[in-house]
Amino acid sequence: MTAEPFVVVGGDAAGLSAASKCKREDPDREVVVFEKGRWVSYAHCGTPYFVKGEVERLTDLLTLSPDDIEERGIDLRREREVVAVDTDARSVTVRTPAGERREQSYSDLLVATGAHALTAPVDGTDLDGVFSLHGLDDAAAIRAALEPEGEATPESLGGDGYVDRERVERYAAWAPPETVAIVGGGYVGVEMAEAFTAHGLDVHVFQRGDHVLGPFGEAVAERVETELREQGVTLHLDTEVDRLAGEGRVERLECTGDTAIDVDMALVGVGIRPNVSLVADTAVDLGESGAVAVDDYGRTSAEDVYAAGDCAEARHTVTGEFDWVPLGLTANRAGRAIGQTVAGDPKPTGDIAGTAVVKAFEQECGRVGIVDHERTREAGFDPVSETITTASRSGYYPGAAETVVSLTADRETGRLLGGTIVGTDRAAVRIDTVATALEGDMTVGEVENLDLGYAPPFSPVWDPVLTAAKVLNGSLDE
Amino acid sequence: MTAEPFVVVGGDAAGLSAASKCKREDPDREVVVFEKGRWVSYAHCGTPYFVKGEVERLTDLLTLSPDDIEERGIDLRREREVVAVDTDARSVTVRTPAGERREQSYSDLLVATGAHALTAPVDGTDLDGVFSLHGLDDAAAIRAALEPEGEATPESLGGDGYVDRERVERYAAWAPPETVAIVGGGYVGVEMAEAFTAHGLDVHVFQRGDHVLGPFGEAVAERVETELREQGVTLHLDTEVDRLAGEGRVERLECTGDTAIDVDMALVGVGIRPNVSLVADTAVDLGESGAVAVDDYGRTSAEDVYAAGDCAEARHTVTGEFDWVPLGLTANRAGRAIGQTVAGDPKPTGDIAGTAVVKAFEQECGRVGIVDHERTREAGFDPVSETITTASRSGYYPGAAETVVSLTADRETGRLLGGTIVGTDRAAVRIDTVATALEGDMTVGEVENLDLGYAPPFSPVWDPVLTAAKVLNGSLDE
Repeated sequence: MTAEPFVVVGGDAAGLSAASKCKREDPDREVVVFEKGRWVSYAHCGTPYFVKGEVERLTDLLTLSPDDIEERGIDLRREREVVAVDTDARSVTVRTPAGERREQSYSDLLVATGAHALTAPVDGTDLDGVFSLHGLDDAAAIRAALEPEGEATPESLGGDGYVDRERVERYAAWAPPETVAIVGGGYVGVEMAEAFTAHGLDVHVFQRGDHVLGPFGEAVAERVETELREQGVTLHLDTEVDRLAGEGRVERLECTGDTAIDVDMALVGVGIRPNVSLVADTAVDLGESGAVAVDDYGRTSAEDVYAAGDCAEARHTVTGEFDWVPLGLTANRAGRAIGQTVAGDPKPTGDIAGTAVVKAFEQECGRVGIVDHERTREAGFDPVSETITTASRSGYYPGAAETVVSLTADRETGRLLGGTIVGTDRAAVRIDTVATALEGDMTVGEVENLDLGYAPPFSPVWDPVLTAAKVLNGSLDE
Repeated sequence: MTAEPFVVVGGDAAGLSAASKCKREDPDREVVVFEKGRWVSYAHCGTPYFVKGEVERLTDLLTLSPDDIEERGIDLRREREVVAVDTDARSVTVRTPAGERREQSYSDLLVATGAHALTAPVDGTDLDGVFSLHGLDDAAAIRAALEPEGEATPESLGGDGYVDRERVERYAAWAPPETVAIVGGGYVGVEMAEAFTAHGLDVHVFQRGDHVLGPFGEAVAERVETELREQGVTLHLDTEVDRLAGEGRVERLECTGDTAIDVDMALVGVGIRPNVSLVADTAVDLGESGAVAVDDYGRTSAEDVYAAGDCAEARHTVTGEFDWVPLGLTANRAGRAIGQTVAGDPKPTGDIAGTAVVKAFEQECGRVGIVDHERTREAGFDPVSETITTASRSGYYPGAAETVVSLTADRETGRLLGGTIVGTDRAAVRIDTVATALEGDMTVGEVENLDLGYAPPFSPVWDPVLTAAKVLNGSLDE
């Protein structure tokens, strides 16, 4: 038994996956998890659906309760912020809510500090009624504001014992807003457009670039933009938001140029950044992306210090280089692998493929790999793409829906580099076929010859992915 | 330009894919397709949904009409049965409806004669009201029998000009049956149980073995059996049907032992066999499976003679051996490749993985590779399997449904050998992930580390396939 504990900083996906796995593999090992907030082990990705009202209670979003965690033999310490790391002394400094500082030694340390929502460069984000959506307290406050005046309570939202009561009570006293501006048309912006629309709000989405969902490419974006408009959302593309303005409470959104609209709520979702300040001046190096640099086992440049989750890089299967793609599965998987490694049975954290799926009202969207031609060129490839539109099922079978697949390959080698998909019928799940092909280093010719399932209720004879591969393979031959 | 034409025997998936591709690649090439029946280019797999009534017209099931085919420059000759092949003379003998025989020379020949439904060892299958479901005439007759007395006509069924009028008219005169026996619980049996139930019939399924859907393994079968029973279907497992009896028209089904039930309709779906009689006494060799032996380009043992589709073997990606797995995509793909090869640009037909999906009422089922332990052992592997049950979406998201995944791997190498899946929410499409992993020769450890898509509406953080791989990988370590 090691004298000092395995110390984990951050009590969410990566941190608790590591703690749980380590404890399971080596039950005698002492494992201490510090979490600066009250919430632990919650499903970030579920928060838009809590705001929408499809998920009733905040606690429904918890994978594990603190009691569950304690039952696993993990020493969980909530409301304890780790404020410093000393890699020479192999210890961390922990601050209590009362402001006291204590030292904690470690044998192994996992930095799983996550990420935070950006608000820059928009001014006025400190006004009342301006939100980010990063964590359950944000979700609770937004939903409190949306519910009929005076109705929401910390208890009715299922936040008992955890939630920021003062914030919930303040927004519960609001008359429900009528017009909301969403600044940023990424995942969160698109998902929250759906959530706000469900509450009957007049929803405006502002996007600086010419398309929403940038990483999903143009073919997906165009379909999603049509969907958003059909659902009553007003899109302001190529529009830069300058500031949110109001007297204490947000009243107006002003764009560069002349555009301005009256709003009584705003959500700023312009991206996230890794939480790396804890290790900024230590022996733990950052990568080019600004996230913590790691190797294939999640090891940082400092001895026995690991990093995982939204604060860390991971190796991208297409480029072979380390990149920052903060997503839920990556965090869970890397955490779990590191837990096993710390327990004495080293396991690689696994490559990432940049696989992401998102629901935009009725449209299911997926993307994987590298689809942007500029980025593929930077990675040394000569990209060729094809986009096809086909049916999700045999054309004669009820419910067949248009499905758009775009695939990108390297001209010289034929190697698949990435793909996107959009459609209303089982589209998102099909991106997993492309992800698996990418991780198998397949060429487009190999993808074209995949023996995928066919039955009229589920797919046409040639699955949409196969049709795209067939067309792209034809282009490569030219 | 070759003097003699490319001759194709059989005007369905494989034959017309080959003809179309050859003509597209080499427009000057003469391509002649002989089809013994009137129907061409029809979707076999859609016939249960025509019987059910979800597909309105028989012609909806045609991928290409004869006119479409002629427009492609293909010389299509329907109602012309090829009755002999002379590989020395490089010619085939064709019989016209009038009984005349004519010789047709070929430069290249594709045997795409398909398969036929077995009825043995059940006696009495020649009684009125006993059907197989193999082709559109069967589908038309069954649906005519199900519709109110005197209502169905060749025209109302959308069979104008093609359908067996006499048979449709005869069954249209029937009072709709009340009790139907389905002999055989394979794909067709399960799909037709759904179709007959939709018409309000009392449906009995007889299965000789202890489970329906044998190739899908026990985990899928058990769930499907529960589903069938919940939908009102009576299952007779471990029950061998001896004979169908009646005076001209089927009235009773008798099993080995004492069981007998009164029925007024029966469907026999106990399997299919390749149509190989055409080449039985020629230089075209058959494989061990009884289907035509081919190489990776679909070439038979006879010079310039190819075979594809339900009459031919194909190489299985798991065993590396040739096997007979008659499925729609395989036929289309092999046909297309052979068309390209014949046009002068050789292309392999592609491996098969035995991927199959089927809908059983609300349950979506998928299977791929080799999942039967005895068969894996015969192929030289030491199989280990694990079966898991998990949610199809994040547990808190509405519509999450139980999904059962079973994976099989080789103990020594960890190589994935096969898998099955069943569930009501996007289950079938997920088998494509397993199929792609199989064709990428992945180990279970590699599957466990796949970066699959995650968003609450579509999957849990760990996709069901990943969870299964994680558990199986744990077992392999033991």
